[in-house]
Amino acid sequence: MRLFAGCEMSLQATEPCPTVAMLRPRSGLAQWLASESYHFDPPLRPTEYVDSYGNLCQRFTIQPGALRIRWSAIVETDDVIAVAPQALATPVGALPDDALQFLLQSRYCPSDKMTAQAQQIAGGFAPGYAQVEAIRAWIHRTIAYQYGVSNETTDAIDTLNANAGVCRDFSHVGISLCRALRIPARMVVGYLYQLDPMDLHAWFEAYLDGRWYTFDATQNEPRAGRIVVAYGRDAADVAFISNYGALTTTALNAWVQLDNGQGLAGAG
Amino acid sequence: MRLFAGCEMSLQATEPCPTVAMLRPRSGLAQWLASESYHFDPPLRPTEYVDSYGNLCQRFTIQPGALRIRWSAIVETDDVIAVAPQALATPVGALPDDALQFLLQSRYCPSDKMTAQAQQIAGGFAPGYAQVEAIRAWIHRTIAYQYGVSNETTDAIDTLNANAGVCRDFSHVGISLCRALRIPARMVVGYLYQLDPMDLHAWFEAYLDGRWYTFDATQNEPRAGRIVVAYGRDAADVAFISNYGALTTTALNAWVQLDNGQGLAGAG
Amino acid sequence: MRLFAGCEMSLQATEPCPTVAMLRPRSGLAQWLASESYHFDPPLRPTEYVDSYGNLCQRFTIQPGALRIRWSAIVETDDVIAVAPQALATPVGALPDDALQFLLQSRYCPSDKMTAQAQQIAGGFAPGYAQVEAIRAWIHRTIAYQYGVSNETTDAIDTLNANAGVCRDFSHVGISLCRALRIPARMVVGYLYQLDPMDLHAWFEAYLDGRWYTFDATQNEPRAGRIVVAYGRDAADVAFISNYGALTTTALNAWVQLDNGQGLAGAG
Amino acid sequence: MRLFAGCEMSLQATEPCPTVAMLRPRSGLAQWLASESYHFDPPLRPTEYVDSYGNLCQRFTIQPGALRIRWSAIVETDDVIAVAPQALATPVGALPDDALQFLLQSRYCPSDKMTAQAQQIAGGFAPGYAQVEAIRAWIHRTIAYQYGVSNETTDAIDTLNANAGVCRDFSHVGISLCRALRIPARMVVGYLYQLDPMDLHAWFEAYLDGRWYTFDATQNEPRAGRIVVAYGRDAADVAFISNYGALTTTALNAWVQLDNGQGLAGAG
Repeated sequence: MRLFAGCEMSLQATEPCPTVAMLRPRSGLAQWLASESYHFDPPLRPTEYVDSYGNLCQRFTIQPGALRIRWSAIVETDDVIAVAPQALATPVGALPDDALQFLLQSRYCPSDKMTAQAQQIAGGFAPGYAQVEAIRAWIHRTIAYQYGVSNETTDAIDTLNANAGVCRDFSHVGISLCRALRIPARMVVGYLYQLDPMDLHAWFEAYLDGRWYTFDATQNEPRAGRIVVAYGRDAADVAFISNYGALTTTALNAWVQLDNGQGLAGAG
Repeated sequence: MRLFAGCEMSLQATEPCPTVAMLRPRSGLAQWLASESYHFDPPLRPTEYVDSYGNLCQRFTIQPGALRIRWSAIVETDDVIAVAPQALATPVGALPDDALQFLLQSRYCPSDKMTAQAQQIAGGFAPGYAQVEAIRAWIHRTIAYQYGVSNETTDAIDTLNANAGVCRDFSHVGISLCRALRIPARMVVGYLYQLDPMDLHAWFEAYLDGRWYTFDATQNEPRAGRIVVAYGRDAADVAFISNYGALTTTALNAWVQLDNGQGLAGAG
Repeated sequence: MRLFAGCEMSLQATEPCPTVAMLRPRSGLAQWLASESYHFDPPLRPTEYVDSYGNLCQRFTIQPGALRIRWSAIVETDDVIAVAPQALATPVGALPDDALQFLLQSRYCPSDKMTAQAQQIAGGFAPGYAQVEAIRAWIHRTIAYQYGVSNETTDAIDTLNANAGVCRDFSHVGISLCRALRIPARMVVGYLYQLDPMDLHAWFEAYLDGRWYTFDATQNEPRAGRIVVAYGRDAADVAFISNYGALTTTALNAWVQLDNGQGLAGAG
Repeated sequence: MRLFAGCEMSLQATEPCPTVAMLRPRSGLAQWLASESYHFDPPLRPTEYVDSYGNLCQRFTIQPGALRIRWSAIVETDDVIAVAPQALATPVGALPDDALQFLLQSRYCPSDKMTAQAQQIAGGFAPGYAQVEAIRAWIHRTIAYQYGVSNETTDAIDTLNANAGVCRDFSHVGISLCRALRIPARMVVGYLYQLDPMDLHAWFEAYLDGRWYTFDATQNEPRAGRIVVAYGRDAADVAFISNYGALTTTALNAWVQLDNGQGLAGAG
């Protein structure tokens, strides 16, 4: 599937504001960036580095006043998403070294406090994909998708208590419950074709039987058309914008369309 | 200073228990390992990998029954510890890329909720070393050093509420308050010569004016004689033992002595 | 300086040909990619990884027949290039760890055999920038820029013997002579604005007084307007195309222009 | 197999001599370091870093005069070595990303010039283990093991011309011929139990059918009892001592024995 995706942010700073943005996906196994444009108005020149998860991070300082950021790309991504109901959990002793960090508790995923709940929801299923799918379905069924209930400090237990949240919160609950069952799970932020309402999105992946599988508790069923912007342990690692100074988002618009073959210029 | 340090753990498993240990320090800028011994009884053969912080991690599966682990080393470490009351904070925009991760909130350091408290404690000091020292001194003065109040799920806010904790908890509070002031801070676990009572220890480091400085809220004043075993964002990253199965620690003994020149065999 | 640069290659394979391409620059300290397009005709979907030098590498298999690859981008790069005639060599003992590998002899830079020559050319200059500039100027003055003398197996000693070569060969000689003087030096491949005749280009960098400086023995004087595609020890590390099967390049066209403000679509 | 191994070097410097040593093996899949001692006389305090291959590198400056370095360890290593005559070559397109660098030509392994020879020696065998074994056996049969023929500048082609060399040269020839056949191959330096005459040793590994296999052209048949000190593309990457100043080795002694159970102190 060839998608034209992007976002446009209008930001307002009242002081010089050092910022780390994670808006540029990497080409990799999951996707191929055929064209890309990353524009600042007024112009500025970021630097870029790779974090410990392999994500591209753009660093720049926003000057007082308005800044508009527009990122867009044409991306080749998978038409179908892998689903493997029979896949068994990889025993912890056989996990690859770099999957082990995704078993650990983290800021928004205090899995160390959630073992009982994880057992209750998924303990009756075969260890592996069936458990993760049981968790995903339970979240989708049980927790209300609702804006305004959660904020930047909300963790998975807060969401369970509120019984409501958004994609970020759903992911944190899913990740926490997987880790409580000793299944490595990681946060993914990016784009989903035909997400409704369209927005920047978050979901999670679980490591099972030798590879990562995608799970999205906001959706009824497995859906492809995903563009991965960043991976991390939870939302602390993968904020689209981390600002170290006062910064207001005055507008945010995201889009994902089938590519119409006219390139970035014609696409929008 | 040439130290003979080590620990001995007696563990008891009731099921095969995949385990990741972080007991082996790395030689580096902070220290030089002159001799080392890492012994398992009954014998087993671990593998080892380097995590994303550069720590050495030993992987092995503990079989049901008893396991005794004994690690010891003779380590060259600094005689004096750097203290720089005038050092200013490095502005976020000028931090090295790999220090940025230590500004982020983490499992036991929910710095995103602690800005007001950080301002209250250290807001009146010059941004930099003076603030971190104000935080360290405040913790030392205010929070009671007490066993049994905290456990593995206790985060920095829990510790502030309880007003009591141990070295791990003190470190989490210090790290959280630094990050809330936009000063990168990281957890350190290791050994401290003449720690009283002797035990495995934890402290923190803050990145100021181009380098990391050591702070230890459990101590009256800056103390050298430290052996670093591992660095991380907080205790989730640097557990001495992470076990994925039921495991009981039946005995734990740690020691740090001046090396008597007889090597590992004669040292104990 | 805002440049529109790119290349177009026509390739012909007679068998399925696994290929690693290094055509996509990274945003970093040296440059910022504002827009980019990477096109294959017929279409194919590469994967991408980062090599040990931080370069982006695209992997794909070319099917028998013709393949056209077209990469282009709009890149912000420096208007002026750093020149520091007084900069001293960093003593080997004070080099950063990751610069040490650029002291080692490598396939096309057998610096272990070139100490006498390096001393002869640059021994009379102050250790540092003056030596590297003496080397660069000597190459520019002495070695004829000439196509057809060298090929893919030509190393720096071959070039000294032939007394002729192209940008790749000039770089290998420069790198080898620097290393022979214990100055870290690395190969750079990329684009240079107003290179005449226009082509994909190669030059080298030397590590002096705490940073990397650019040197280009094909040019009369320091010139900015550079886009870095990849860094390595020598040409073995940074081939634009590494093919593991029979592959013919039937056409190659490269360009660098000042951006006309119309974006990638209008730029060409 | 539990081995007590080590080496002792006596060095003589006439000027301050920055040095990088690779004498300390890492615990990993291949081996487990149970005890270790790394001693300098007169005492000095190195720093240590990990190079891009994962090797531990010790940095220090040797002062004018004599220095004795003694490294020893008790190491658990494999009793048998994997042999897989039927293993097929992994097609280049299916190699893991980080194996690709071991296909490239390098300083002592100019595989780009050795395709014809590789085809002649191994072209008639099934692509994979059989080819590498044919290469290994050909070297063992054809090239004389002889000290004094080669030196630090000798590459694989030099060795083929001289028809004589030592373990390092044999390895370079083996690696070059493998790469010429598109089989990733890497240099290994370390210790071999019952090597005769005992010395620091070098051999090579080839990547086949999803893993690395050991080959040693100095031996009649596959032999276990190996301790790996470092991996690299060739000898340029894995010198036991890289000195940047005049340095003479006045004595070198290496040993490998079965561990007698008395630890490092009793072992010697």
